[in-house]
Amino acid sequence: MITSPHNEKLKLVRKLRERRHRDRAGLFVAEGEDLVEAARHAGLEPEFALVAGEDVEPHLLDAVSALGSGTRVIAVCRQRWSEPGGDISVYLHGVGDPGNVGTIVRTAHALCDGPVVLGPGCADPYSPKAVRASMGSVFARPPARARLDDLRGTKLALDGGAEASLAEVAPPPPVVICIGAEREGLPGEIASATNASVRIPMRPDGPDSLNVAVAAAIALHELRNRMAGHG
Amino acid sequence: MITSPHNEKLKLVRKLRERRHRDRAGLFVAEGEDLVEAARHAGLEPEFALVAGEDVEPHLLDAVSALGSGTRVIAVCRQRWSEPGGDISVYLHGVGDPGNVGTIVRTAHALCDGPVVLGPGCADPYSPKAVRASMGSVFARPPARARLDDLRGTKLALDGGAEASLAEVAPPPPVVICIGAEREGLPGEIASATNASVRIPMRPDGPDSLNVAVAAAIALHELRNRMAGHG
Repeated sequence: MITSPHNEKLKLVRKLRERRHRDRAGLFVAEGEDLVEAARHAGLEPEFALVAGEDVEPHLLDAVSALGSGTRVIAVCRQRWSEPGGDISVYLHGVGDPGNVGTIVRTAHALCDGPVVLGPGCADPYSPKAVRASMGSVFARPPARARLDDLRGTKLALDGGAEASLAEVAPPPPVVICIGAEREGLPGEIASATNASVRIPMRPDGPDSLNVAVAAAIALHELRNRMAGHG
Repeated sequence: MITSPHNEKLKLVRKLRERRHRDRAGLFVAEGEDLVEAARHAGLEPEFALVAGEDVEPHLLDAVSALGSGTRVIAVCRQRWSEPGGDISVYLHGVGDPGNVGTIVRTAHALCDGPVVLGPGCADPYSPKAVRASMGSVFARPPARARLDDLRGTKLALDGGAEASLAEVAPPPPVVICIGAEREGLPGEIASATNASVRIPMRPDGPDSLNVAVAAAIALHELRNRMAGHG
């Protein structure tokens, strides 16, 4: 039973709150019974797990939790990364909110066969918030890291100001939906490296934009419907 | 210039962090220049606004902020509520996460003509997190409060376990999409008071469910497409 906050395992968990430590070590922290179980279910055996009251005093586990008190279990696991691929996938550029990145990983796991590809400026999918928002999909379908140039297939930029609606395209696979930050959108040099820009049809009297995870979901759903004809 | 934390306006802002005070007073707090501007743009004139360095010492404004430091302006506004209606609308039951409620308000504002209707157990759309997630749509299209029985039209329950896919229905307007909590779904008595249950088509090897705001967005988008034939 760990009874000291200076324990090496607890120190590691604390360090892994910071991205630079996660990047360097190639590790991350899964918090909570559901996520630790989801990791194991996906074949991701933790480096170690700490159960409150069994391996560690509960207040010491609470103290290293990134997601608030009451955590029953914390596991340190090795990060996994996929290669880009699949008939439909998503490329994110500058999507900095970890909740949105995690939600997109979950949505892509539900709707398409390719991993989420993370370009520059994205939140770490292995941050505590992203892992939680992914609800374990980050274990089952690990994200990829790549530049847009490295990706094969038709690249569709999602852009609220585009002439063409999503409903007007049905490219043959593979297709990569390219999405930028909520306000800025894709940088010019990225947008111009795509094959076409499309928008999600919205009401003229509505808001200027959608949440980025919502936009990704609608685009994946619609494109999947439209591409079903090619399958 | 307010220089004391005991100022009545600052006290009110602090109180309005709690739902019971918001409910009782019928007021809420908008934080940040973008949201305060969005409120004014929607014709919602604040009861009062506090600008850091003009009306109040910056550190005192930070101290009452619910969304973290660095807030330049906070406005106290009166809550507005709509009546249910529209050709397509959303009914939420037990959706407790304020970020999801706010995101659904924003998405509905972009995709459909009816307000989001909040049933029992939902997060307060006027909580700081919900207001922020709505990105101002809560001002432009205020939500409604009602029971399912009070709503007119075809009621479609969104249910991951339903036989019918969303793609198999195209009811005439008005249609209400009914959505429950992410894990529990709609309670039995609510589900049985709807006209049909439909699911969003998902991959068999994917996650068990989608984020509730993502599910709402896909359903609204798909239904809007399918109902366009009736328009």
